[in-house]
Amino acid sequence: MTKKTINIGLIGYQFMGKAHSNAYRQVGRFFPELPVDVKLHTLCGRNLAAVTKAADTFGWENVETDWRRVIANPEIDVIDVATPGNTHAEIAIAAAKAGKAVFCEKPIGNTLQEAEDMLAAVREADVPHAVFHNYRKAPAVSYAKKLIEDGLLGQIFHVRAVYLQDWIIDPNFPLVWRLQKEVAGSGSHGDLAAHLIDTARYLVGEISEVSGLLHTFIKKRPVVAEIDDKLGGKAGTEMGEVTVDDASVFIAKFESGAIGTFEATRFAMGRKNRNCIEINGSKGSIVWDMEKMNELEFYSDQDPDGQKGFRLIQATSGEHPYAGHYWPVAHIIGYEHTFINLLADAFTNLAEGKPISPDFVDGYQNQKVLDAVERSSNSRSWVSV
Amino acid sequence: MTKKTINIGLIGYQFMGKAHSNAYRQVGRFFPELPVDVKLHTLCGRNLAAVTKAADTFGWENVETDWRRVIANPEIDVIDVATPGNTHAEIAIAAAKAGKAVFCEKPIGNTLQEAEDMLAAVREADVPHAVFHNYRKAPAVSYAKKLIEDGLLGQIFHVRAVYLQDWIIDPNFPLVWRLQKEVAGSGSHGDLAAHLIDTARYLVGEISEVSGLLHTFIKKRPVVAEIDDKLGGKAGTEMGEVTVDDASVFIAKFESGAIGTFEATRFAMGRKNRNCIEINGSKGSIVWDMEKMNELEFYSDQDPDGQKGFRLIQATSGEHPYAGHYWPVAHIIGYEHTFINLLADAFTNLAEGKPISPDFVDGYQNQKVLDAVERSSNSRSWVSV
Amino acid sequence: MTKKTINIGLIGYQFMGKAHSNAYRQVGRFFPELPVDVKLHTLCGRNLAAVTKAADTFGWENVETDWRRVIANPEIDVIDVATPGNTHAEIAIAAAKAGKAVFCEKPIGNTLQEAEDMLAAVREADVPHAVFHNYRKAPAVSYAKKLIEDGLLGQIFHVRAVYLQDWIIDPNFPLVWRLQKEVAGSGSHGDLAAHLIDTARYLVGEISEVSGLLHTFIKKRPVVAEIDDKLGGKAGTEMGEVTVDDASVFIAKFESGAIGTFEATRFAMGRKNRNCIEINGSKGSIVWDMEKMNELEFYSDQDPDGQKGFRLIQATSGEHPYAGHYWPVAHIIGYEHTFINLLADAFTNLAEGKPISPDFVDGYQNQKVLDAVERSSNSRSWVSV
Amino acid sequence: MTKKTINIGLIGYQFMGKAHSNAYRQVGRFFPELPVDVKLHTLCGRNLAAVTKAADTFGWENVETDWRRVIANPEIDVIDVATPGNTHAEIAIAAAKAGKAVFCEKPIGNTLQEAEDMLAAVREADVPHAVFHNYRKAPAVSYAKKLIEDGLLGQIFHVRAVYLQDWIIDPNFPLVWRLQKEVAGSGSHGDLAAHLIDTARYLVGEISEVSGLLHTFIKKRPVVAEIDDKLGGKAGTEMGEVTVDDASVFIAKFESGAIGTFEATRFAMGRKNRNCIEINGSKGSIVWDMEKMNELEFYSDQDPDGQKGFRLIQATSGEHPYAGHYWPVAHIIGYEHTFINLLADAFTNLAEGKPISPDFVDGYQNQKVLDAVERSSNSRSWVSV
Repeated sequence: MTKKTINIGLIGYQFMGKAHSNAYRQVGRFFPELPVDVKLHTLCGRNLAAVTKAADTFGWENVETDWRRVIANPEIDVIDVATPGNTHAEIAIAAAKAGKAVFCEKPIGNTLQEAEDMLAAVREADVPHAVFHNYRKAPAVSYAKKLIEDGLLGQIFHVRAVYLQDWIIDPNFPLVWRLQKEVAGSGSHGDLAAHLIDTARYLVGEISEVSGLLHTFIKKRPVVAEIDDKLGGKAGTEMGEVTVDDASVFIAKFESGAIGTFEATRFAMGRKNRNCIEINGSKGSIVWDMEKMNELEFYSDQDPDGQKGFRLIQATSGEHPYAGHYWPVAHIIGYEHTFINLLADAFTNLAEGKPISPDFVDGYQNQKVLDAVERSSNSRSWVSV
Repeated sequence: MTKKTINIGLIGYQFMGKAHSNAYRQVGRFFPELPVDVKLHTLCGRNLAAVTKAADTFGWENVETDWRRVIANPEIDVIDVATPGNTHAEIAIAAAKAGKAVFCEKPIGNTLQEAEDMLAAVREADVPHAVFHNYRKAPAVSYAKKLIEDGLLGQIFHVRAVYLQDWIIDPNFPLVWRLQKEVAGSGSHGDLAAHLIDTARYLVGEISEVSGLLHTFIKKRPVVAEIDDKLGGKAGTEMGEVTVDDASVFIAKFESGAIGTFEATRFAMGRKNRNCIEINGSKGSIVWDMEKMNELEFYSDQDPDGQKGFRLIQATSGEHPYAGHYWPVAHIIGYEHTFINLLADAFTNLAEGKPISPDFVDGYQNQKVLDAVERSSNSRSWVSV
Repeated sequence: MTKKTINIGLIGYQFMGKAHSNAYRQVGRFFPELPVDVKLHTLCGRNLAAVTKAADTFGWENVETDWRRVIANPEIDVIDVATPGNTHAEIAIAAAKAGKAVFCEKPIGNTLQEAEDMLAAVREADVPHAVFHNYRKAPAVSYAKKLIEDGLLGQIFHVRAVYLQDWIIDPNFPLVWRLQKEVAGSGSHGDLAAHLIDTARYLVGEISEVSGLLHTFIKKRPVVAEIDDKLGGKAGTEMGEVTVDDASVFIAKFESGAIGTFEATRFAMGRKNRNCIEINGSKGSIVWDMEKMNELEFYSDQDPDGQKGFRLIQATSGEHPYAGHYWPVAHIIGYEHTFINLLADAFTNLAEGKPISPDFVDGYQNQKVLDAVERSSNSRSWVSV
Repeated sequence: MTKKTINIGLIGYQFMGKAHSNAYRQVGRFFPELPVDVKLHTLCGRNLAAVTKAADTFGWENVETDWRRVIANPEIDVIDVATPGNTHAEIAIAAAKAGKAVFCEKPIGNTLQEAEDMLAAVREADVPHAVFHNYRKAPAVSYAKKLIEDGLLGQIFHVRAVYLQDWIIDPNFPLVWRLQKEVAGSGSHGDLAAHLIDTARYLVGEISEVSGLLHTFIKKRPVVAEIDDKLGGKAGTEMGEVTVDDASVFIAKFESGAIGTFEATRFAMGRKNRNCIEINGSKGSIVWDMEKMNELEFYSDQDPDGQKGFRLIQATSGEHPYAGHYWPVAHIIGYEHTFINLLADAFTNLAEGKPISPDFVDGYQNQKVLDAVERSSNSRSWVSV
């Protein structure tokens, strides 16, 4: 029995393009029971030489320089939007209108309006949709979800989430697109806080109210002369204005009665990719940190007196979602596998005609929180989401 | 040459009474060069049998049941106020008027007005004054102060402080005095957040604005039948209203331009005494956690590329303040030694006629922040300190 | 300019087969500058249905059930021996005689004689050879090598290496091939201690003398009814004798004057894959643990007094070998990437006509140490390697 | 009802003298229910000025310069021998003959013969005896003992113990008495390995066979000009021979069938006082490290699948031995408290006429293992204890 082939058209070939490409290429290798065959059909980027080189490296069969032609291609089933945020809405909406499944990087839009329009578009077109909130697909995070659903944390009181990086502390770091509001939408807020919000929503539910602060420490930077494929680039000589936040902090109330603190920053010297969440409930607590993504700390009040303590679980064995598809216990997996896991779920649901999780609804809800924090920062008061 | 003897009168003999007594008894043993001899003159408590037993255990020469008589005793040089917060102001002001040096537990008052009155009283009487913000006297914290003063962290961007405990999550935990506003003033806020504020002020400077939330998860509890000497007691059968916060969270701006997040709670299951602060600057970062109080994490951007990382410093060697007075390196000290260090400094300054640090000014500034957070929680907006 | 294609023939498709397949498939994706194209030509296993399924999953173009035919195929350039240890020598020697490059899983042979014969064969045939001591290719380990070579550890005094697992503590765990001497050669010793020895040799140099103990805690187990693709299987009803060690411990002297302790066991409850080495020198120390393979702890005595401490280096940035080929700093990689890195080096050297590292010389030297420990365990005395 | 007063005579006033003095002074403060009153009667040292100053600092009532006069003093009940190892036997035997209780620092003698003579002496005199193996009195270690006795670790397979320090790596560090065999008996071996052996014996039982190596990295050092009160001193200009080991490593078999690895060294750069033991059994494991002495790691195989992991227990609550006598949970205690706990137990048993634990039997058994390792190092083979 032959599996159906799903042809992918990926728009964007930088950091996220590389991560998504790898995931499409690998998903069938680690999840051979997947009901579909995934084909890396077309990679799209504006620079033909560069996109051709990337396609060759990442394993794509065709290249395009205009995303409209990718969408127009009847062979292609899924449009993956991995471009900077200012182009998400236009591409995703066009893809939806063309009847394609739409997979989109987070945050789905640069504004709440864009997110709303995108959600409306996929709903109207009735096409499958997914958002790359990849961190919830770490085995440890998925397992934490299970612990919470099984009641092992009891009633949740506290959420404590930080996403700390340090890559733009140098005032000579150039004004890359991620520091320009018209392209990126926001700074740490949409890039990093969006991840925290997704993990918190996934594990604890909706946020109802926030009081927050978006802050920019360094207001002018040299314009970028040349971008690299990590996150940086070469500084030019002119100076330009930083129009996004360097840091985003907020306190929040959840619909469930829990309260949360959130902090996302690119100014935490020494913290490279510390995406960490702690959740405290009436029966237990969990802690997870992306830098040690294979581990889950779990405290259970049900343990005998004297023997209670945070357990360091190696979330790499058969009981932990996805982990059994890779290597023996504690032969760890990494960042790229969160994307593979996300796609494994996405293609399974796609084939079964079920909604993908997370999808544009999640993207939209996330954007509502981002938007509320921004409004709160402007009004200097609590606002409802 | 004989040293001058300083006679202490200590009001209160529960948890803090035990900690202070130990510190008075030990300070000369570990700091033999201290310019004074410290004598445990009188311990005061309302229950004669109990205070007599405590005095015997802790090593006090005399007991009193009325604090007024302690203050009236001309032999006594220092009045130490280690009672619940609602009595601080009355005792401390009376002691100051009687010309005694006044050492007071934190927070110095239950209200900003009380703190202001207390500060006015010691200033008017021109007597020495001190507040037991003991955690800044951990060698690792004092050493962090030095690193910051030496410029090794550069410009400070972020302060991230949490004080997490879990001792009142059980709804049957009784309504001890620490949960009654008329006695304790506030809950986690004055008890725990006050510590965070002091450490942050000590290391980073004054806080200018805050937006915060005080929250009570469990609003009714059984009244207390019998208190114990740790922090708990035996539950009675009647129910009473919890009138203090269970948790306090706030975001803050510092005068220096740094931004901070603060969280204090008694509802973080599994966290027993996690009093942790992280500070990120343009050149480096530090992390300190009271549960591992002998260690200081330090990240320096000055380390060679490739070799940068948070260093786990055992802050127990001769270079670290106070540590040289105890044991060889990494033969760790504990909670009680922070009080001993505080007294070593206090008596040195007392003998030299210098202001003690921290003193009532610190206590007052601290209270201003506590008060601002409470006002912010009520007004649901940012407020100035 | 077209790159030369290197056709691989892989013998074995279980755990190691999966890991090697992934590495061949991925190496060109992450190391696009590689001077050759790597083609997954033929996968070989005795069970046609199983090997066909594996080939499909892992991405091999052809299958074979007889390794002799793989060796006989003139299209194939590299024979990769990933079978149980008892077949290594025969296959590898035949491959060498056929003029193929030979890549072999560790330990290269089940006996010192086999290792010697294999080394002689590749030397006589003058073919390239490599051994999959993959852990030295973790970026953190390679970087530790650089630190040592740069003199940052000074004279090495101590090596402290443990490889701890716990997967056969249950007496009902079946007698899989890894517990049978005639197939596996030894137990923890060749499986785990061999890794420790390689890392120690790589970083500190040759071991000259050992005193050791091989020990079997559980001497009889149920025969295996059905193997799975991790490391286990289903227990049958008959009992059979365990003919390998459960644990291997030894103390060692290095030629350099350093002394070492080594322990490998499958009986360390709770330790899943703790492959950890600590090295102490006159100027510094390093610690590495495979379960946190992206981190390297480094202590430098050159740091200022008071500021010394073990640094937790995220060995994931451009300065760290291999790491720059993957994701931004602290977006961690995993177990599988150590194989990819090994192949990147191997194919680079292959193309340039240079010896691969590690190669059969390393495999042979490793086996000499394994053999010496076994002799020492039998003679109950120190023996020379 | 008045308690009996126990008068102590302490011989030695350096590092151990300070630690013991503190413990005698504090034991009744934290253990008020102790059936005796402990009086710091006489401190003894050869230098009158120095011992007088020490007595004043530590709180002793009298001083002596000849230990014989302390033993001759009929008021004194307990002789505490805290001098260098070469004088233990003479003093302890004389004290026993005089009918005094004898408390002795570890290792009890410099040779097995001395230990045997000392044990014979206290047995013949039928006097109480104790040895200061203080680390077993850390709450976490005592609690580990309880876990093992309760069967929570099952059958013990592995013991892994290291005591790592780095204070004599500098070749200019002077030849203090601890580096002279005629005074100290041995180096790391008797100083540090003795602690490991005691903890292992306490938790796992007797060692039956060993194979070990005593090694000296630096064979000549400057003679000491002036000692300090930590562990060091000022280097002189002449050179002298180091006659003790710098490092001691051995592998061991326990009577129970467990196997162990032991390493003690003063040459582990960056390790200040890492006294760490891990024990693996068929049902669970524990890890304890003196530098984090308030914590106990515990892995239980009884935890549900998926939720297993090493728990970080804060061994500071009421369930943990001794901890309830100090501060609330996670308000940590330190090195000095292990001595206080040891004395609390010792005086309780003394008052009740029960044997103290650990006592000279433990000291003697410990010395048998030390002696066996030394013999093994000389014979280059396994030897029986």
